[in-house]
Amino acid sequence: MKQSQLFTKVLKQAPKDEVATNARLLTRAGFIHKVMAGVYEYLPLGLMVLKKIEQIIREEMNAIGGQEVLMTTLQDKEVWGKTNRWDDKLVDNWFKTKLANGSDVGIANTHEEPLTFLLTHYVSSYKDLPIYIYQFQTKFRNELRAKSGILRGREFLMKDLYSFSKTQKEFREFYELCAGAYLKIFERVGLGDRTFRTAAAGGSFTTGLTDEFQTVTDSGEDVIYVDEKKKLAINKEVYTEENLKKLGLDKTKLKEKKAIEVGNIFPLGTKYSQALGLTVKDETGREQPVIMGSYGIGLGRLMGAVVEVSHDEQGMIWPKAIAPFDIHLINISKNQTPADKIYKALLETNTQVLYDEREVSAGSKFADSDLIGIPTRVLVSDKTLQSDSVETKQRGSDKTKLVKIKDLSESL
Amino acid sequence: MKQSQLFTKVLKQAPKDEVATNARLLTRAGFIHKVMAGVYEYLPLGLMVLKKIEQIIREEMNAIGGQEVLMTTLQDKEVWGKTNRWDDKLVDNWFKTKLANGSDVGIANTHEEPLTFLLTHYVSSYKDLPIYIYQFQTKFRNELRAKSGILRGREFLMKDLYSFSKTQKEFREFYELCAGAYLKIFERVGLGDRTFRTAAAGGSFTTGLTDEFQTVTDSGEDVIYVDEKKKLAINKEVYTEENLKKLGLDKTKLKEKKAIEVGNIFPLGTKYSQALGLTVKDETGREQPVIMGSYGIGLGRLMGAVVEVSHDEQGMIWPKAIAPFDIHLINISKNQTPADKIYKALLETNTQVLYDEREVSAGSKFADSDLIGIPTRVLVSDKTLQSDSVETKQRGSDKTKLVKIKDLSESL
Repeated sequence: MKQSQLFTKVLKQAPKDEVATNARLLTRAGFIHKVMAGVYEYLPLGLMVLKKIEQIIREEMNAIGGQEVLMTTLQDKEVWGKTNRWDDKLVDNWFKTKLANGSDVGIANTHEEPLTFLLTHYVSSYKDLPIYIYQFQTKFRNELRAKSGILRGREFLMKDLYSFSKTQKEFREFYELCAGAYLKIFERVGLGDRTFRTAAAGGSFTTGLTDEFQTVTDSGEDVIYVDEKKKLAINKEVYTEENLKKLGLDKTKLKEKKAIEVGNIFPLGTKYSQALGLTVKDETGREQPVIMGSYGIGLGRLMGAVVEVSHDEQGMIWPKAIAPFDIHLINISKNQTPADKIYKALLETNTQVLYDEREVSAGSKFADSDLIGIPTRVLVSDKTLQSDSVETKQRGSDKTKLVKIKDLSESL
Repeated sequence: MKQSQLFTKVLKQAPKDEVATNARLLTRAGFIHKVMAGVYEYLPLGLMVLKKIEQIIREEMNAIGGQEVLMTTLQDKEVWGKTNRWDDKLVDNWFKTKLANGSDVGIANTHEEPLTFLLTHYVSSYKDLPIYIYQFQTKFRNELRAKSGILRGREFLMKDLYSFSKTQKEFREFYELCAGAYLKIFERVGLGDRTFRTAAAGGSFTTGLTDEFQTVTDSGEDVIYVDEKKKLAINKEVYTEENLKKLGLDKTKLKEKKAIEVGNIFPLGTKYSQALGLTVKDETGREQPVIMGSYGIGLGRLMGAVVEVSHDEQGMIWPKAIAPFDIHLINISKNQTPADKIYKALLETNTQVLYDEREVSAGSKFADSDLIGIPTRVLVSDKTLQSDSVETKQRGSDKTKLVKIKDLSESL
């Protein structure tokens, strides 16, 4: 894409009311725009990143047998009544609205109840199980404060998968399979080396421990204790002698770290299936409630976490797999023809290129490029052209390399 | 995908409260599920169709210079105040809700105001124009009645593109370009031969005529007069001698038809840009309001229209480009091994296959297959295996063909 055609522009300053690094950098670079606290529009560059993250997650969810659906934002009050979670005392951050006929409807806070109810139409026998269903759908949470940028929104895109199993054993096997898929996802988006499966509090569903995935970074709000060798961690909230023993963790080998939660998986037991009547006949003909699990990743949160861990003074540094473009081609020669040709040649090899052919100073171009953070910069200048070359540089490194134009495709 | 793993099942009967053909067939076949009137969940088969339609539209919008964004569902009341459209008298089908701090927010009815406001941050000079921005985003319309299935929803996915131009000439050129892209989209989803650019009332934005795209079908709610040779039509609501003359249409060559509106494009003039202060400095330094246009396609509506025009007594007949799968492989032989092998071989050629390996009667399999409507059926039976063959049949045709297994990939 030609940069002059991109409707966003780099802003000189981040908005004064943004405190989170992710929001400051993403806003300045034109990836997102704030509508109100915790509510962000995704602009072209930001949506490109979001879509790449979505596709990585989709591939990994399909690989473990997930079936993709799209639930709705408007939700039936009655279904929520069955678990009492319509009550604002039990779910304290609902958005609700009214139909034209005056009846109340919910605005998707989460989707356990509607999905469990949906399945009562299709599931009756143990032979129908297991089932794994996921979606990418927006959640709405009426938070009083929201100042973590895209890490915690009032409106945010989430991948939520739910498992429906006939036995605890079947549930546990999938739970571990999904934990493995999550580690693959974090690896693929570039957070692999600093993201840890972390024991955490089980919430209202289990007295045991459950699992979060935490990405280590100084700006994190959570505190975890990491065993780097075992690639395991424990959240401060459940850091007790008893739990350490249970997890086989040695206190002396743990390091205290700040971290951002980028995913969680936890057992739901039979709470929803019992309340909504999702049962199956087992081999002996007895009705049994279905055993459920929940597996979530917030896409904006994941994108924000990548920015938090991967930036410098000049801007963002995108991992290749989720960068908006592979190559930032920059022309600073007065003669635009050679750069035009290189752009065309790169497109023909299916390389994703942002081509800065704007009439602005070289300094501006470099600054914008560093802020946007595309992995590889390819510079065309009068000087490089003298040797029929371009200069390549990886974002985050100072090392430049002269590459003959005819060898460029191969060298990338 | 193996059909036994699909969590949906074909329902014997359509829900009694569904009157629209699209909803009856799509629900029975497990493509959608109704949450409440006008609010449908997309289940795996339905979402596959929706995603293919989305990708076709995306490709055509990118081809005419569209930049994809994702606006938000929660909307700022203040921005809507600038055009007075926050007022329920002017927009009578709003859903609204409240933030935790008590202030009102809108739930996306449409996105003209927020997008125009967004652009005030990035656009200041005529050199920034033209800009074409689109998104796939859910709209919410608080309709009192909603009984057309996925043709008219309270919650529905829409592609909306907006054009921002500096002159009427530039606007008109893009308007025609987009009209051409729309015809390509309707062609690609299989509605080409019966979809007509149709002159219609301009609404509040223009005293002249504007353009709809209407798909001819007996279940349509609109009445249009079609000149099949010219591939043009005129909506009954503007069918006057004067307009016929303006359009160069000859009354005697027009046929009255019922039709479904599957898209519309219309000028917005400077209504929003003036109200929200979206102006650019022209060559002489004078501030000019930006000239806008709007271009919409409802994805569910388009999918529903395909079902309305392409079905028979037995079920749906999907055009290849948007069918959930290319091939419905059905095994009715007691020996499942040959069909398993064929399934594997087809997957290796990247063919999208739904493989019915369930232990149900041949009759059920055929009936389900006709209802679901995948374009090509490949049958493996004891009889076909005697000659190392399978039987192929196109949905909507009675003609069957014996094909040697070794020649199958090639023949498809």
